[in-house]
Amino acid sequence: MNPTFERMPVSIFEQMSQAAVRHGAVNLGQGFPDFGWPEELLAEAARLVTSGSNQYAPSRGAPALREAICHFYAERQGLDLTPDQLVVTSGAIEAIASLFFATLNPGDEAVIVAPAYDGYAPLLRRAGAVIREVALRPPTWALTAEALEAAITPRTKLLVINNPHNPTGRLFSNAELEAVVTLARAHDLLILSDEVWEEVIPPGATFRSLMAMAPERTIKIGSAGKIFALTGWRVGWLAAPVELAALAAKAHQYLTFAAPPNLQGAVAFGLSRPELIAPMRGAFERAKARLSDGLARAGYVLLPSEATYFQCVDLHASGIALDDMAFALAAVEQAGVATIPLSPFYEGEAERGLVRLCFAKKDETIDAGVAAMARAK
Amino acid sequence: MNPTFERMPVSIFEQMSQAAVRHGAVNLGQGFPDFGWPEELLAEAARLVTSGSNQYAPSRGAPALREAICHFYAERQGLDLTPDQLVVTSGAIEAIASLFFATLNPGDEAVIVAPAYDGYAPLLRRAGAVIREVALRPPTWALTAEALEAAITPRTKLLVINNPHNPTGRLFSNAELEAVVTLARAHDLLILSDEVWEEVIPPGATFRSLMAMAPERTIKIGSAGKIFALTGWRVGWLAAPVELAALAAKAHQYLTFAAPPNLQGAVAFGLSRPELIAPMRGAFERAKARLSDGLARAGYVLLPSEATYFQCVDLHASGIALDDMAFALAAVEQAGVATIPLSPFYEGEAERGLVRLCFAKKDETIDAGVAAMARAK
Ligand SMILES: CSCCC(=O)C(=O)O
Ligand SMILES: CSCCC(=O)C(=O)O
Repeated sequence: MNPTFERMPVSIFEQMSQAAVRHGAVNLGQGFPDFGWPEELLAEAARLVTSGSNQYAPSRGAPALREAICHFYAERQGLDLTPDQLVVTSGAIEAIASLFFATLNPGDEAVIVAPAYDGYAPLLRRAGAVIREVALRPPTWALTAEALEAAITPRTKLLVINNPHNPTGRLFSNAELEAVVTLARAHDLLILSDEVWEEVIPPGATFRSLMAMAPERTIKIGSAGKIFALTGWRVGWLAAPVELAALAAKAHQYLTFAAPPNLQGAVAFGLSRPELIAPMRGAFERAKARLSDGLARAGYVLLPSEATYFQCVDLHASGIALDDMAFALAAVEQAGVATIPLSPFYEGEAERGLVRLCFAKKDETIDAGVAAMARAK
Repeated sequence: MNPTFERMPVSIFEQMSQAAVRHGAVNLGQGFPDFGWPEELLAEAARLVTSGSNQYAPSRGAPALREAICHFYAERQGLDLTPDQLVVTSGAIEAIASLFFATLNPGDEAVIVAPAYDGYAPLLRRAGAVIREVALRPPTWALTAEALEAAITPRTKLLVINNPHNPTGRLFSNAELEAVVTLARAHDLLILSDEVWEEVIPPGATFRSLMAMAPERTIKIGSAGKIFALTGWRVGWLAAPVELAALAAKAHQYLTFAAPPNLQGAVAFGLSRPELIAPMRGAFERAKARLSDGLARAGYVLLPSEATYFQCVDLHASGIALDDMAFALAAVEQAGVATIPLSPFYEGEAERGLVRLCFAKKDETIDAGVAAMARAK
């Protein structure tokens, strides 16, 4: 059996969601909204299921969707993309897997920034790469040029950056992003920029894509599930220089071939109506305030959260002696709320006093979650 | 860049479908129906999109779907499966990829039976395996114990069998399947049995699953897209011994995480109504007769086809001197019909005089395809 997967646990998101179901707990763990998506997209998807094609889409994505993605990014991020730079995938994680499998060879090195989304390391390892980890630390989670540079060797091929950053909720500064670009250029590295949270930012905040800064070497990852709060749809994509996109497309054609045409069509419909997005930002911002007020009243100390729909809690500063995993298990089993411990997102020395909560939830879900967090204290 | 994908062409299915669009040709190449699916499933999917969950399904599949799959196979194939033996994936190809990545290590050997579905070899190679090919030859396409045994070495870990077989249309005999099981047991091999065409068989034919014959070592691959003629939906699965299913699930959780919950729900609905399937069999059987009669009238010599919705044509016996690839290109560019040449499905010495046509098409599509095939002669 393959050791990468044999030695690996079930994903912490799945573990916690299963525990939430088993114990009837409020699920503030795995990141999915329980309200807020645009109903218009559901109606369009239903229309396309009953009156559009239900046969294979083109492997690289429905032409209308690839056009819509180019147009969306031109308007919102000033990017200059063409459809032949795009590959539509079955969720953003398949875009990441396709890129890793298409570009990496045994012995290549990849730099990841911890706490890192839990899919990067196993996929990199299965693609044959050696992982170098840059560990960010609370409360600033600052990404420094020095730390990045220390992780780069002559074998480094790829930097994996996630901005806005999950699970910390950081939106990296221009200076931090510029350091990434400078180093990538100096060492001739590819940058996989996982920007799935690009639209999940507070009203007034601005997001800057690495694709705008280093288009010659950036592979940008996007997700309709995150943009439209429809995480189950599994419509993601990558945008990359033309030849790299063509290469990733070859891996994609044998991982899943193509995403469902009806859901792709509904996403194209949504991307051409960016006015659907602003109300979601406002709604999630209000939900964030409700969660953080409630947690503060319950005596929890929170870390800053600038973007994503996640809020981290500092257990030790809140007077809780348990480590993150022990707290998360007790909280879901006894107090009735699922959270996500941060230690599984480190390969090396982990932070063990932080848990992440998802606030993209209806008032009653948040209130029930806060009440359970109060019991967990 | 990774050599497996760098050296590999775009899939022949995608190439031919793109050429069909470009030249306005009738598409009898890539295997997808243009009629015949049960409308009930579309209505159910639309209902679930607008009133069910659109958030992440459990990674291993919606519980209702896993139950429905177990029940379906118990009724139709006498299998005794439990939901913990199942992993629902984003199309059958992702089930195959998950199993390969989860079980194979560099240097392991896998046996494939050519002409072989074009995804097997690149995925096996990317998983690190060495490929041993058993080449079947027309017109019998017989699979012999001797040829299989000759491909097995002490490093062999996996036999990849596809039954009913694409692109030949063969339904392997009991004797052939028993030879597979005997050899797998003698050499302690896993069997990946790609049975996606299990329900695409003529009325009256019976399908026998390797899962019924060697449940201790078989990984069975299934596909809702094939069963219900909805190839775009990308809901597939694998069934395997419990521990192997759990291992494949770990790879799946990082390839796509989960398939859309609404499409999963509609598939569960369909599987619990097997009476929806029989009319499809009759309709495709009539379409097959229409295509083969038309081709015969146009002077083409056909190979036998026992199952799947594919019919192979023997070009050389039909008096055509071109090889399969040259004919397929001329046919799509000049005569206006896309077909699939068989030579890309061999790693070693290929058959070069055969093309495959898909007959799961409306009368007018078949008639237009036959007229174009007559022009191509
Ligand atoms: C696919 S499960 C993980 C979902 C997610 O993005 C998160 O919770 O961080
Ligand atoms: C995913 S494209 C291939 C479809 C198919 O099964 C075939 O045409 O053989």
